[in-house]
Amino acid sequence: MKTLKQLLASKPQSLAAVAPKDTVFHALKVMADNKVGAVLVLEGERLKGIFSERDYARKVILVGKASKETLVEEIMTDKVQYATPQNSIAECMALMTEGHFRHLPVLDENLQVIGVVSIGDLVKETICEQKFIIEQLEHYIAG
Amino acid sequence: MKTLKQLLASKPQSLAAVAPKDTVFHALKVMADNKVGAVLVLEGERLKGIFSERDYARKVILVGKASKETLVEEIMTDKVQYATPQNSIAECMALMTEGHFRHLPVLDENLQVIGVVSIGDLVKETICEQKFIIEQLEHYIAG
Repeated sequence: MKTLKQLLASKPQSLAAVAPKDTVFHALKVMADNKVGAVLVLEGERLKGIFSERDYARKVILVGKASKETLVEEIMTDKVQYATPQNSIAECMALMTEGHFRHLPVLDENLQVIGVVSIGDLVKETICEQKFIIEQLEHYIAG
Repeated sequence: MKTLKQLLASKPQSLAAVAPKDTVFHALKVMADNKVGAVLVLEGERLKGIFSERDYARKVILVGKASKETLVEEIMTDKVQYATPQNSIAECMALMTEGHFRHLPVLDENLQVIGVVSIGDLVKETICEQKFIIEQLEHYIAG
């Protein structure tokens, strides 16, 4: 099974990111411009959190806040789980299914962000791989 | 491969729904209460649309609207693709991957909603099934 390193190498990476002191409104614009459902929150090059459509839907208007006055750092998810390039796709899917999140940052040994994988990326890859294995095994059996 | 009918039978169904004239704010509350990322928009028993966290993040504050004054019908996705209980899980995943959506209502022959499946449900099921097939084939080969 592929590692994240191999998966990231095959996928063009454009990291959608905002700063902790950016407003939620700004983060929504970055998400829309990049056509993504979550953005990384970076301070310089350090990962401080992740901010998603889910955070926006749950933690702003429902608790009386407004997106133009609320800062990303107030409502981002700050205990971010991350993967390393050596993790397998299966390990990451287990992590995401367990934790019910859809975006997983990938950090190198210096804790620099080198990419993000979504549950969609991993699912697509897993289904492809399993289909391939099934075909190989069936081919083997058919002789 | 399983049909949706079989999948729905194995999954407890609680349909999170709102009315077209409900406010976006109300829909957000229903989504939070039900811990889901999208709600059906029903007029009586007829499916009029679907409203998701994505609709909220893209079509309210970014275009100058407010969630307490905007009605669900103004920004819901109204051309909803749906499945029937006879569709296979593979057919539905293809539909969702192609259309980039994560929730698929399931309607019976009278166009009554009988459930909703999420991409997460289908993925979990597909990975389980494929794993089972691989094990069976390997067992067969091993003798």
